[in-house]
Amino acid sequence: MQLVGMLDSPFVRRTAISLRLLGVPFEHRSLSVFSTFEQFRAINPVVKAPTLVCDDGHVLMDSTLIIDYAEALSGRSLMPADRTERLRALRLTGLALAACEKTVQIAYEHNLRPADKRHPPWLDRVRGQLASACSALEQEVVAAPLAADEKTMTQAGVSTAVAWAFTQLMAPDAISPADHPALAAYSAKAERLPVFVGAPMV
Amino acid sequence: MQLVGMLDSPFVRRTAISLRLLGVPFEHRSLSVFSTFEQFRAINPVVKAPTLVCDDGHVLMDSTLIIDYAEALSGRSLMPADRTERLRALRLTGLALAACEKTVQIAYEHNLRPADKRHPPWLDRVRGQLASACSALEQEVVAAPLAADEKTMTQAGVSTAVAWAFTQLMAPDAISPADHPALAAYSAKAERLPVFVGAPMV
Repeated sequence: MQLVGMLDSPFVRRTAISLRLLGVPFEHRSLSVFSTFEQFRAINPVVKAPTLVCDDGHVLMDSTLIIDYAEALSGRSLMPADRTERLRALRLTGLALAACEKTVQIAYEHNLRPADKRHPPWLDRVRGQLASACSALEQEVVAAPLAADEKTMTQAGVSTAVAWAFTQLMAPDAISPADHPALAAYSAKAERLPVFVGAPMV
Repeated sequence: MQLVGMLDSPFVRRTAISLRLLGVPFEHRSLSVFSTFEQFRAINPVVKAPTLVCDDGHVLMDSTLIIDYAEALSGRSLMPADRTERLRALRLTGLALAACEKTVQIAYEHNLRPADKRHPPWLDRVRGQLASACSALEQEVVAAPLAADEKTMTQAGVSTAVAWAFTQLMAPDAISPADHPALAAYSAKAERLPVFVGAPMV
């Protein structure tokens, strides 16, 4: 099984970390949807990261759907079975994915367009959405801690930590650790875990 | 429980149809993340559609995560349990979500920016990715039919039909029914089902 995509994508990184936590073996192919577009297209014509090439050659895309497949393979899940805990994990994962998506939109606006094609009202909108997602995540982590060990970590923890680190890498001027101390502390703990160290963002 | 968002978003629409197929009751609030931004923000500060407001007031976002919650509530799933069938359903759902995402990106480029802020190389890239996703979906539907009745339809069917209709609404010049006859026929069948008629795109 091959996981295709660069770990500087939070969607690739959360997939890689989830697969490792689930004990599902895979080979990582660090191809870029930009600098190695043609190589990526030969594997998945939609050129979407992460892409999973299954052992039978089938190709999957979308991080949540790939993680679903890995959970079916491993016979266990990173989502809590208890309904209340699952609701919280879904809520935090949704906030984390929104933070990732908004940070990607900011990065794309800056990196994939010449300066005269950038649209400041769009950037303002997206930066506001990112700030709201991070603020809600901070409140959630303050209200109840998230597991930061490889045995009990849930998808909420994986996605929250990955989202924070990615936002700090790509949009540090938009979101400050001083305003999000619980998130920053949680991220620091998670980044010391072997599964995180083994999937470095840069 | 309230599902918040406009049905012209394929992510809102596939959620509404999935909730109905699962028998999970909800009230639909047709708020726009653009024209009713402030009203939306009062419900979910991230302003992301779909948003689900649970009966206990908790707010979820991301269509796949909302559907996960609804499946936990209803006790059944729109994903096949059999591993081979599930892999196919995940593959088709991933392609359908990619088609939706690329169509959204095309629509945003046209509708949310003044003409001088549009970036043709970005549009070319995204249109190519959309064409690849639709072409792969067409091949999948030709290779093996998808259920188009409310009893046996899976998430692959819901998402594929919703993606096709959305692409035809928003980017008809990019993707032609003549080149995708199996998809067009499947969509036509699905759109006659009461759950689809009850969640009209326009």
